[in-house]
Amino acid sequence: MAGALKILVNGAEKSEVPAGDRGLNYGDGLFETLAVFFGTAKMLVEHLQRLRCGCEQLKISFNRWNELQNEIEQMATSADTLERAVIKVIITRGNGGRGYQVTKNGEPLRVVMLSSWPERPETAAKIRFCSTPLACHPALAGLKHLNRLEQVLARAEWDDQFDEGLMSNMQGDVIEGTMSNLFIVKNGVLMTPDLSRCGIVGIMRQQVLNLAESMGMKIKIRSLSKGAILEADELFITNSLMGIRPVAWLESSAFSLGSRTRQLMAQIQDKRL
Amino acid sequence: MAGALKILVNGAEKSEVPAGDRGLNYGDGLFETLAVFFGTAKMLVEHLQRLRCGCEQLKISFNRWNELQNEIEQMATSADTLERAVIKVIITRGNGGRGYQVTKNGEPLRVVMLSSWPERPETAAKIRFCSTPLACHPALAGLKHLNRLEQVLARAEWDDQFDEGLMSNMQGDVIEGTMSNLFIVKNGVLMTPDLSRCGIVGIMRQQVLNLAESMGMKIKIRSLSKGAILEADELFITNSLMGIRPVAWLESSAFSLGSRTRQLMAQIQDKRL
Repeated sequence: MAGALKILVNGAEKSEVPAGDRGLNYGDGLFETLAVFFGTAKMLVEHLQRLRCGCEQLKISFNRWNELQNEIEQMATSADTLERAVIKVIITRGNGGRGYQVTKNGEPLRVVMLSSWPERPETAAKIRFCSTPLACHPALAGLKHLNRLEQVLARAEWDDQFDEGLMSNMQGDVIEGTMSNLFIVKNGVLMTPDLSRCGIVGIMRQQVLNLAESMGMKIKIRSLSKGAILEADELFITNSLMGIRPVAWLESSAFSLGSRTRQLMAQIQDKRL
Repeated sequence: MAGALKILVNGAEKSEVPAGDRGLNYGDGLFETLAVFFGTAKMLVEHLQRLRCGCEQLKISFNRWNELQNEIEQMATSADTLERAVIKVIITRGNGGRGYQVTKNGEPLRVVMLSSWPERPETAAKIRFCSTPLACHPALAGLKHLNRLEQVLARAEWDDQFDEGLMSNMQGDVIEGTMSNLFIVKNGVLMTPDLSRCGIVGIMRQQVLNLAESMGMKIKIRSLSKGAILEADELFITNSLMGIRPVAWLESSAFSLGSRTRQLMAQIQDKRL
């Protein structure tokens, strides 16, 4: 992360990784971004659980889970004078193998990076539709892996006029933002796109779904066209840093903060701080 | 690259890159793999040209082309006692930016790595079809970028029983091998898959096409089904290291070395050594 305050590479304080690492060479790894509030890494269990699932799916034989958890917790504690900070974790398959082939004895690499909270406005968001499409990768769908060129290209479509851009698959279904998941409320039903063929299954997305269920909201996970989103009654985006952020503008359409979004925000706020 | 003999990072002899580099974090960069014969990097002009096109397409503002060329040439010269060696070049967007957003003043990173020639058999190849599909990315098609998880997953489908695996798009058209391009000859016509929607436009593929044209061969760039490939009269794969490698077996179908493949191999051999 540009401007990291502190970096641990395999537990040692240093700022570099081997040039031969498969993370650099192939994007062969996974990452997580955690919010840190007053020295505590939020939803650590859920982030570690997602990393475990990702390693299993990509067959990365990472087993230093205790070390990793300690490093994250200690790094978070070291930032306890900050109201908010960010920890990014990267796990790669390491140095092993010749070409794309994986060797059984390769040692995965872990990186834990602390950085300051991003200075973004926290008012209701102004967002847009991106033209860069998201490709469908059934074998990679849902994973927070290191192959993120699509998001880089999508984010390069605008400068600072918007807070986020929504990406669609090749069929035109909207899937997610470049760095967030998307929810709409229509006729009292909470809806979010189906991520079984592409996209990242966000930790905060899952929290919102759990919360909505516990609050008795009607939920639908389904494909959402641009038209369906523009006609929504309420619209918000989520990720681990922003929590729930209501959308005020999508392109030239205005949205007001609705009751469902407000209820969910109040509950999430309670859980997070 | 695992077991590199020598590495230059931005011109300095070292083996590590910054953990915050966008190449590691997002696969935000490009690479090339060059054959080095007795101290000379082969098809250097073509590899540099492809890097230039890739940087332009991804809007990576790399401008140290002279330094890069000198580094590759000097590294190749340092290996002049070796009959064959490999140089891998990586260019990334560097450290700039917050999240996916690119900052205008970011300084790209360049890595040049020398390693020994891969110990692979050089007899006619035994290959297979992979089940991991290649996603279509119109904005990334053709580029040799650092998002290569699909190839890692495809290569993990077999151990050492095969020399290469062929990957298809979601529609079932065969596109390329995990590390090579594919050609067939049918009724005297040389054919290779269309790469306008996915795949890597190989330097050796282009050499073969140029050569075939200069030799007056009939050429078709078109979509090729598995069935069309299994019914080919001749079959070969190409990349910068192997040159042209004839295929002897595709799954359980046998192929013999045909006259077109033989003619092309003879010409390419003359040009390369």
